[in-house]
Amino acid sequence: MDNPVLVEVTRGPLVESRHRGAFAVVDPEGNIVASIGDIARPVYPRSAIKALQALPLVESGAAEALGLEAPELALACSSHNGEERHVNAARVMLLKAGLEEDSLECGPQWPARMEDVAVLHRADEMPCPIHNNCSGKHAGFLGLAKVMGVPTKGYVLPDHPVQLEIKAAVESMTGAVLGQDVCGTDGCSIPTYAVPLRNLAHAFARFGTGEGLEPGRAAAVEALYDANVDNPYMVAGTERFCTNIMTVFGDRVYAKTGAEGVFCASIPELGLGIALKCDDGATRASEVMMAAIVDALVEQDEDEAKGLQRLLRPEISDRRGAHVGDILPVEEFSGFLGRM
Amino acid sequence: MDNPVLVEVTRGPLVESRHRGAFAVVDPEGNIVASIGDIARPVYPRSAIKALQALPLVESGAAEALGLEAPELALACSSHNGEERHVNAARVMLLKAGLEEDSLECGPQWPARMEDVAVLHRADEMPCPIHNNCSGKHAGFLGLAKVMGVPTKGYVLPDHPVQLEIKAAVESMTGAVLGQDVCGTDGCSIPTYAVPLRNLAHAFARFGTGEGLEPGRAAAVEALYDANVDNPYMVAGTERFCTNIMTVFGDRVYAKTGAEGVFCASIPELGLGIALKCDDGATRASEVMMAAIVDALVEQDEDEAKGLQRLLRPEISDRRGAHVGDILPVEEFSGFLGRM
Repeated sequence: MDNPVLVEVTRGPLVESRHRGAFAVVDPEGNIVASIGDIARPVYPRSAIKALQALPLVESGAAEALGLEAPELALACSSHNGEERHVNAARVMLLKAGLEEDSLECGPQWPARMEDVAVLHRADEMPCPIHNNCSGKHAGFLGLAKVMGVPTKGYVLPDHPVQLEIKAAVESMTGAVLGQDVCGTDGCSIPTYAVPLRNLAHAFARFGTGEGLEPGRAAAVEALYDANVDNPYMVAGTERFCTNIMTVFGDRVYAKTGAEGVFCASIPELGLGIALKCDDGATRASEVMMAAIVDALVEQDEDEAKGLQRLLRPEISDRRGAHVGDILPVEEFSGFLGRM
Repeated sequence: MDNPVLVEVTRGPLVESRHRGAFAVVDPEGNIVASIGDIARPVYPRSAIKALQALPLVESGAAEALGLEAPELALACSSHNGEERHVNAARVMLLKAGLEEDSLECGPQWPARMEDVAVLHRADEMPCPIHNNCSGKHAGFLGLAKVMGVPTKGYVLPDHPVQLEIKAAVESMTGAVLGQDVCGTDGCSIPTYAVPLRNLAHAFARFGTGEGLEPGRAAAVEALYDANVDNPYMVAGTERFCTNIMTVFGDRVYAKTGAEGVFCASIPELGLGIALKCDDGATRASEVMMAAIVDALVEQDEDEAKGLQRLLRPEISDRRGAHVGDILPVEEFSGFLGRM
């Protein structure tokens, strides 16, 4: 099935590039409220489900046992920029688990912003696993392993007790079966299991509302939802879409990006979950798709509308800063969303 | 018209992302030898036609008057990494024109490689227009303006004599009419005129062979072709596709990338020009498309085949360096190419 073009990139008078995609909006019972494209094909959710992967950390009582604070829980669900506050918080999480940085098995990554790269260069240092955008998630995994009393070494492997706990939580939240036939390896070396968009949206409808969940799980999703929307900077960082959209909407919207053009979101006041993927894997397009869907679903006051507008139609500039093009939803997509 | 999926990105057992595109292979008379997708829709060629944009510099005698050497001509056609040799060569080009770096109107850009970024950070410097991947092209434009005796200021504007010369050369090489209705602004602030892939491929069939060109133009394309294939490092840089494919094939293949997934190439021994665009603008996919087309067209000895293989199916690694996926041509595309 061919997914339609949802987002276009203009330059001067013409459309320069086109991005296709699919999305699902689902309620807590699993009913599809709206969708475009193929929402039954399994897609790797990558980092878009870090909040689900953090459930065992909270549900098991490990987060409480370790004394993790809300900003650290948000970091456990983050794809952060590797800014100073992110890196420091990841270090504190490891400290609380009594572990050293060399326990991290996520591999090294340069910070996202040149300002933070410069700090390393001036100190003549190379990036470390602690700078990896996934270091908070991994620090959470390590904390869980410690509290579970299992070896921390190899915690990224599919058959490690930590990954089995995570798989069970994601299976139960999404209702999808996660077998080897849909198992790839994520950029940070943990397994990523492909799940249909329909199921991902269903999971995030439950994540935002707690509906249909056992009391322990419901308390865990509430704690994680609140930790994320209350600490949007910890979830991504300076000038990042996830941070910006959660800052615009306060606690009304939760949204999380994943590599290769995936995005998940929860809108508790509407009882809805959203999942989307840009076919070609482009983050620039998945962000505009998510902004357009949120724009269509969520009532906005003046400030919220203004804040969202910038995310809905990001400008393309030349290297002197002149406005030379735009990224925006195509008319058919906007029209469809307007009729939702 | 829907262009087909040509390249897929795998992870573990599944395809994670898909890239669509169109391409044309054309001979010097303008006959279409092979094509897939819409090759009549104008696409912005961006940096893929820098070699055509350098024609007035050579044809006018300006390059000779300035004493530009072959590596500098290659830099005038380059999208370079901002490595030390690139930046130094751009400085020499400006020096030969009697101009300072502040004449450059391309805007600043960080070098592509962390090693080169580190040099700036350690010196507490910000990037300058000389580090911009287009600085060689702009140094060529400035040299042409000097020899033409026109003001250098504003040389990036569509109605400046330098840009009018370039537009005329590109119109005559492509056979396309370049009006305001197809004119956007490139990342380096010069005009970029959209041209159908069919016409771009035709231009590069002529560029590689000189066929059908007046003697002065034929001498200019020969000088530029040779300068590029003899100095592949100056055209892009360390670990870059353009540099790698020209290094693999010596003087047998010329190839040049442009932003938003455009690629042009010449294969003189076959009398063919190639132009392609990945619909969504992804460079990773346009590179594999170009490698696949060259693989299908060009006879290879063992070393060439081995060198090309790495470009045909680049590996995706996690941050610890483990192989977790691949970028490769889809079966239908490979099958089509096999029947060419």
